Amino acid sequence: MKFSGRIERCALSPIRKFHPYVVAAQAQGKKVYHLNIGQPDVPTPRAFFDAIGDFRESVLAYAPSPGVEVYLDAVKDYYCGLGFEVGREDILATYGGSEALQIVLSCILGEGDEILVPEPFYPNYMTFVNVTGAAIRPIPTSGAEGYRFAFRDRIEPLINDRTRAIMVTNPGNPTGVVLSKEEMGVLVDIAKKHDLFLIGDEVYRELVYGDEPLSSFLEFTGAAENIVVVDSISKRFSATGARVGAILSRNHELLGHALKICQGRLCAATLDQIGAAALYRALGEGYYAEIREQYRSRRDAVVESLKNIPGAEFRCPEGAFYLMVKLPVDDAEKLQYFLLQEFDDGGDTVMYAPGEGFYATPGMGKNEIRIAYVTKEEDLRRAIELLGLGIAAYNKKQKE
Amino acid sequence: MKFSGRIERCALSPIRKFHPYVVAAQAQGKKVYHLNIGQPDVPTPRAFFDAIGDFRESVLAYAPSPGVEVYLDAVKDYYCGLGFEVGREDILATYGGSEALQIVLSCILGEGDEILVPEPFYPNYMTFVNVTGAAIRPIPTSGAEGYRFAFRDRIEPLINDRTRAIMVTNPGNPTGVVLSKEEMGVLVDIAKKHDLFLIGDEVYRELVYGDEPLSSFLEFTGAAENIVVVDSISKRFSATGARVGAILSRNHELLGHALKICQGRLCAATLDQIGAAALYRALGEGYYAEIREQYRSRRDAVVESLKNIPGAEFRCPEGAFYLMVKLPVDDAEKLQYFLLQEFDDGGDTVMYAPGEGFYATPGMGKNEIRIAYVTKEEDLRRAIELLGLGIAAYNKKQKE
Repeated sequence: MKFSGRIERCALSPIRKFHPYVVAAQAQGKKVYHLNIGQPDVPTPRAFFDAIGDFRESVLAYAPSPGVEVYLDAVKDYYCGLGFEVGREDILATYGGSEALQIVLSCILGEGDEILVPEPFYPNYMTFVNVTGAAIRPIPTSGAEGYRFAFRDRIEPLINDRTRAIMVTNPGNPTGVVLSKEEMGVLVDIAKKHDLFLIGDEVYRELVYGDEPLSSFLEFTGAAENIVVVDSISKRFSATGARVGAILSRNHELLGHALKICQGRLCAATLDQIGAAALYRALGEGYYAEIREQYRSRRDAVVESLKNIPGAEFRCPEGAFYLMVKLPVDDAEKLQYFLLQEFDDGGDTVMYAPGEGFYATPGMGKNEIRIAYVTKEEDLRRAIELLGLGIAAYNKKQKE
Repeated sequence: MKFSGRIERCALSPIRKFHPYVVAAQAQGKKVYHLNIGQPDVPTPRAFFDAIGDFRESVLAYAPSPGVEVYLDAVKDYYCGLGFEVGREDILATYGGSEALQIVLSCILGEGDEILVPEPFYPNYMTFVNVTGAAIRPIPTSGAEGYRFAFRDRIEPLINDRTRAIMVTNPGNPTGVVLSKEEMGVLVDIAKKHDLFLIGDEVYRELVYGDEPLSSFLEFTGAAENIVVVDSISKRFSATGARVGAILSRNHELLGHALKICQGRLCAATLDQIGAAALYRALGEGYYAEIREQYRSRRDAVVESLKNIPGAEFRCPEGAFYLMVKLPVDDAEKLQYFLLQEFDDGGDTVMYAPGEGFYATPGMGKNEIRIAYVTKEEDLRRAIELLGLGIAAYNKKQKE
């Protein structure tokens, strides 16, 4: 039987290939510190479980395809509370931010189309785009420039008659870059001028560590037709297993098309939407500020520890809970195999996400890694220490 | 901005257009009996809610992309209990049967490909297939033949070099047809001979009203590479809002491709999978037999009542909870508008799913309707009575 050429262009998670080596390292009694996982250790607020426990209907029925009303209203109120005018009719509930992206991209992209995405990017974007038959055209960045990308003269030359959209994660995964209001304005202008959709994946919105107010592309009401925002409760409330997200747009033609897909899959999970609504209702700026402070101090611990690794290049990330680091090694994947198979310090070793998986351009990211800071500070410090020791041991062995 | 041509070929639910008229009828004080909805009134077993309530982890974390272990094991044991040998490695957990179909079709279909589907079919198949850029080539059936379709000489001439798969719902929605073992064998032979995937949507498997043992395409181990089965807890346990399903196949190349999409969207909802596992563990043949008996007697009530409508043509359905009926009217959609706007009997009227939405071939199904028997017997009897009275009033008015 034949498979679709599109699925053949998709890849399994680049982290998976290390799995057998992690198992083997653990079997040898090694403790593996994880800098590779985006699963926060922050407890999921009880409001979620309480709301689900309070469900008293005898039949767990389909939710409406656009979403459960209490959830849509909670999302609306959250945005209105931030000062962004959003109506219930501007929102569709989805299975997490992932399905929101899948649906939006299915509405916009066809065979041979292109979408601009700053590189490095979240690897699953590649799967979502490939499945539509379109391709990512990367907007190049460099570590030396702090991975910033919102430059008109860099983006406009990449636009051609097959370009349909620009898609950005803000705050950024894997870079931790937070766009300034001016940078957002540049992207909005380009989208308007070239008649493109601008897809803002804003699932990390609350996690910004500067003094700026929280932003959203939804602020740019002058480009209401161009802008689509994707959101999720996964990171905001440390509820990644709930799979509740949203598409937000004032382009109702787009939402009308998206609703066809929402109706096709009937609905997102009913109880999870009810739990998500309760989270938005129960928690507010006090909670967000607390979580923000926790991640900020984790970030500071990571950045401080990284300064002790000679030759490691990075900028202090401004948001989300990731950063990219350029290591003083020839190949970050080879280093990862070494760390799992040949290295330990008092029985401990470390794992990260090698950088190549975050690039579409072949050869890029070879000596970069992504670090996620979602565990306890002392573990993060120890993990970075192990990374430094491992690099020294690896480079020593290379020279032998 | 441009939209994908594929999404423009998709349609919103054909039932939606009646919504404002239902609201208006209800505002006039009319009671609308629903024969149009696939949402059963059967209570969701408490085991689901209890298992979710017992969840004690502090973080609601991502599930593994292929599924939560307890759920995969529960599905495996369910199939093994039916005598179909299935391993955990043959199963991927999905957001209901809908996502299972979306994933499988994304792996198989590309631009310009074709998939054979007996007509009339579940309308969401059209959305799932259109989104891939492929097209449904309908296998024609007729009410006079009881909507049976597993005829080699009817199917083989439809196969060409762009045909990739045959997809069937068994037991059938909207027809209620249950394939005999011989008919399943015909389809399997055709798939093998022509190197096609055979996708069996078996979400209604437990709802068969004859004396035959429960069947599955997974029985046909001689065509293991061709066969993919889609399943769901939605109808089996009356838990449509839980969104938990599965892809089952012994074609591990297919599952490997499907896993790329599963990893892309990270996981299906964690708690819902835990609840689903508990349903499989807590309930068995006794429960299925009870539900089966309940639907069988509803089916009998509908069939008996329909016999009182002069000129209505139908066969007694063998499974699922639907049947197609050919009405003695010119146009079932026009009748539906009449029933909502101009007709009532003691303040009551009725709603069904007009047949055209179940056909890909233009003009087909114009005087057919789909009835879902998922409510109380007395309501079903009253609804069919209203249908008969409505038809008489409509035809009388047409002649005036």
